Order: sequence, then C-alpha cells, then structure tokens
Amino acid sequence: MMIECVPNFSEGARPDVIEAIVAKVRAVSGARILDLQSDASHNRSVLTLAGEPDSVSEGVQALVGACLAAIDLRSHRGEHPRLGAVDVIPFIPLEGATLKDCVALARTVGETIAKAHGIPVFLYEDAASAPHRRGLEDIRRGQFEGLATKLKDPLWQPDFGPSEPHPSFGAVVVGARMPLIAFNVNLNTDDVEIAKKIAKGIRHSTGGFRFVKAMGLGVEISGRKVAQVSMNMTDFTRTPLFRVVETIRNEAARHGVSIAGSEIVGLVPTQALLDSAEHYLQLTGFSSAQVLETRLRTE
Amino acid sequence: MMIECVPNFSEGARPDVIEAIVAKVRAVSGARILDLQSDASHNRSVLTLAGEPDSVSEGVQALVGACLAAIDLRSHRGEHPRLGAVDVIPFIPLEGATLKDCVALARTVGETIAKAHGIPVFLYEDAASAPHRRGLEDIRRGQFEGLATKLKDPLWQPDFGPSEPHPSFGAVVVGARMPLIAFNVNLNTDDVEIAKKIAKGIRHSTGGFRFVKAMGLGVEISGRKVAQVSMNMTDFTRTPLFRVVETIRNEAARHGVSIAGSEIVGLVPTQALLDSAEHYLQLTGFSSAQVLETRLRTE
Repeated sequence: MMIECVPNFSEGARPDVIEAIVAKVRAVSGARILDLQSDASHNRSVLTLAGEPDSVSEGVQALVGACLAAIDLRSHRGEHPRLGAVDVIPFIPLEGATLKDCVALARTVGETIAKAHGIPVFLYEDAASAPHRRGLEDIRRGQFEGLATKLKDPLWQPDFGPSEPHPSFGAVVVGARMPLIAFNVNLNTDDVEIAKKIAKGIRHSTGGFRFVKAMGLGVEISGRKVAQVSMNMTDFTRTPLFRVVETIRNEAARHGVSIAGSEIVGLVPTQALLDSAEHYLQLTGFSSAQVLETRLRTE
Repeated sequence: MMIECVPNFSEGARPDVIEAIVAKVRAVSGARILDLQSDASHNRSVLTLAGEPDSVSEGVQALVGACLAAIDLRSHRGEHPRLGAVDVIPFIPLEGATLKDCVALARTVGETIAKAHGIPVFLYEDAASAPHRRGLEDIRRGQFEGLATKLKDPLWQPDFGPSEPHPSFGAVVVGARMPLIAFNVNLNTDDVEIAKKIAKGIRHSTGGFRFVKAMGLGVEISGRKVAQVSMNMTDFTRTPLFRVVETIRNEAARHGVSIAGSEIVGLVPTQALLDSAEHYLQLTGFSSAQVLETRLRTE
C-alpha cells in the first residue's frame, strides 16, 4: 500500500535550517522524498513524501520533531497564513490505498503528535470530525497569533491534544484528501469566451461536476493564442477524466469548435488513466489485478 | 527494468520431478515465479518468471541446469513437439524494458548456455539471425529425433554451441518477443458471420493490421449467444488496442451493429492501456514519467 504525504512547514528562508530539518526525514528508511519546494517570502516549505504507511508516518514524526526544535512561531514572519511550525499534513492514497486508509492514518498520526509533544491537532478535509472543520482556511483563520483565543471557542476544540497552543510550535492540521490532477483541455479556437463558458458549465461551484475546479484562459502555444479550459480534478475516482473530456467535447461542438488536445501538468495516478482506457475500450469485467506490472509487485 | 520469461521444459507428467526443477529456480532471489502450468499428455511445463534482467537470466540458467540433470529426451514421449529438455526460452519486455533489451539478453543467455553445457542454441523471433529462422515451428521441425540430421544442414547451424545435439538435452531455442494480449470484442448481435467478416478485415493474414491475429466466434455470455471477435495482439506498441477497437466499431456499424463490450483475457501491460487513455483523451506531450506510481519506483 503506497501513501503520499505533502507536509507544509514554516521555514522557507534559511537554507541551512531547511536542510537540517529535511535531513531528519531523509534518515527514515522507506520514506522517499519526491520533492521539496521552499519559498522565502512565504517563509514556508512543501515536502512531498511517499512510501508504505508506516514509513511515511515515521517520516512525518521525524519532521515534527525537527521543526519543534528548529522553528519558533513567536518570531516567524511570512506572507503565507500558518497555524504551526508544521502547518498542515495531508495524507493522499496512492496504489493499493484508499481515502479511508488515509483518514485512519491521519487520526493515528495526529494522536501520536499530540501525545508526544503536547501540540493541539485539528483534523481536516475527509478526516474532519465535523462539517465546519473540513476546510483548511476555516481552521487556519486567525493564524498562530489568534490561536489561543480560538482554542477557547467550544466549536474549535482540537481533535487531539490540549486546548492551548504549544508555546513555540502552535498547532498542526492533519488530514486526508485524494490526489489532485492538474488537467487542461485546449480548444481549436482563440476565443477565450468559449473556454470560460465551458469552464462555468463543468465546475462544481457553478453547477457542474462535483470534483472539478475549472477556469477559461487564453494561453500561448507555439506562438499561437489558444482558448484553454484549465482544471483541477479533486477526486478522479468520482469525477473521472473521460466524463469531463466528453462533456467539454459536447459543449465545444455547440459553439462550433473542437478539442485540439489536452495536457496533464505534473503527475497523475495510474488508475486515473486506466479508468479512461476501460471506458473508451468498453472493457467489461476488468480488474487492476490484470495489469501485469501491478501483479508483479503484489505476488 | 523488468523482464518476463516464459521457458517451456519437457516434463509435464512427474510432479516430483517438476517440483525439484522449479525449486532450483525458486532458490534464485529476485526471479519471481508468476505461474506454472504442466500438461501430462503434452509432457511439458510452462513456467512464467519475472524480475530484473540479471535475476531472470540467473533463474533461466538454474532451470537449464536442473532440466539437464533430470530430463533425458532419448526416452521422452509427449504430444507436443520439442527439440530439447528446455525447449524454448522467450524473453519479453515489461516496464522500462524494450524488445531490443530482450534481444540482447537472449543472445547473452544463449551463448552462456552453449558454453556451460555444450548445448546447441538457436535464436528465434526478434532475436533470429536470419529471416528463415524467425519462426519457432520452422526451427523445431523434425524435433529432437531429427536434430542430428538437421544440424548437418548449413542453413540450420546453431547460433551458439556445437553442430551436434547434446546427447540427453538436445537443443534449445532462445529469443525475444513482445507480450501477447488476448483481447475479445463482443458485438450486439448473435450473427457469427458478422464477427467472422470483421475478423477477416482486421487480421494480418488476410490484409489487416500487422500485429493482430483474429477470428470470429459465437460465444455464450449470461445464457445469450453473442458474436465475438477474438484476438491476439502480438505487438501493442505497433498495433495499439484503440486503433483496432475503432476499426471494429466502424466495420460493425456498416453491418448495423455495435460493440457491446470488450474483455482482456489474462494479463495486460500497463502501457497498452495508458496508450489508449492518451489517444482518447487527446493528451499531448505526455510522458510515462508523469505516472505517479512509475515515478515512485524510479526515484
């Protein structure tokens, strides 16, 4: 079972401090570091970890310990809102794992952090303990500076740990979410209004598919202006790529244009593409156990 | 780099002998045994191995050593044609490997077997050293009993090893080929003649796609007779699934019928399905390095 974890921590300006923190995670065998992005003006870094649940969990504990030792939020300044030295820890299911597995892992890791260090822990997104606590922006509102007051509110008691901030660390938000897919569809037109109309029709916020965020843009490709529907797919298992592509195709045709091509920005889980192959090839009774490479890894 | 190997050996009736032979392969670490099929009337077994090239190669050497000790073709009887104690060793590229890698591996392994045991080795399929030596049935014609005579023919000199049979082992045929995909498309009709016409149009032997073998059949699915185009896709990288499906869809429409569904029998390489997703979603600039799970394994 493979899990991804993308913890955000509140140091983005001092390279030596960042390196010392990441070194503690690197020392955990089995927790592979796929990416590290630091932003000095945000004073924040984003680490991408992956591996078996136990290894990733151990890597996260190492990160929390290192940030507790190296970061003091009382003197932290940066443009990005934050609540803690490690600010947010989302667990994301990869091959062989489900969102449910990640929710369970978020709870276990959250409880362990609270007990080990006396840090208040909020669960968010699919791990949230109440609907008003799903959104990261709602939990984080008031930031580190407003945390002591917030923790006096009965609606904002932490899921684990004490009802007062850790003096130097603050609090941490732990949760589970599906992997995001950044997916763009380019149209055979330079008319951005058409892309905007299509985006409006397919995104959740204006009546479209539940797990699609979309906007219409004009982009330049090989020196030509192209109208693009730019999307974030927030749960490809429930709003699949093929359904969105076919809807865009249909809406585009109504405006007399067609799909010129699509692009995946960054990474995509295998299953998101296998689902599309299964749909278009009209496969029946297909199981991912029939995928040779998957079988090789599970035998 | 992952390689599959499906050696066929000439013992299918004595379970204790088969088990002793397979145990020698199992002892090689990194060469995973995915499948073993034995047929008593054929007096032959088919082993499916997979792993890194070095491990698979070591597994094959262990198999040859064990069969040399346990099998004597002078007293071997069975319905299936055979030339040697290990009869045929095809190497097949999986994730990260190409047919070219497998051709190189077939040559190395073939040479090693010849040198270690004085066994004549023929290279076949994509590893063949001449067009008339590509087909397994042509190399095997005359079988073990005709081998001494065949090896006197200048056209049938072995690629490695002596020009006379190993007394008890015979000879072995080593080569490289693409993975096969067994792929069926079911039509919304019970008229088998339509499936036969479509099969005739798409298969290589009667003017269709180069890497397709196909026939039209009547099969029973949930108690209903269904016309089926039953295929072997012999190189999905050069004749992809989506192109064949769309051709079948088009030909079926000409007869007033449609595709009810398709099925993959057994295993399929991930890439064959990713290629179809890429086609239908019209992905441009897509690389398999963007597949999250693949990246996890290569970092």
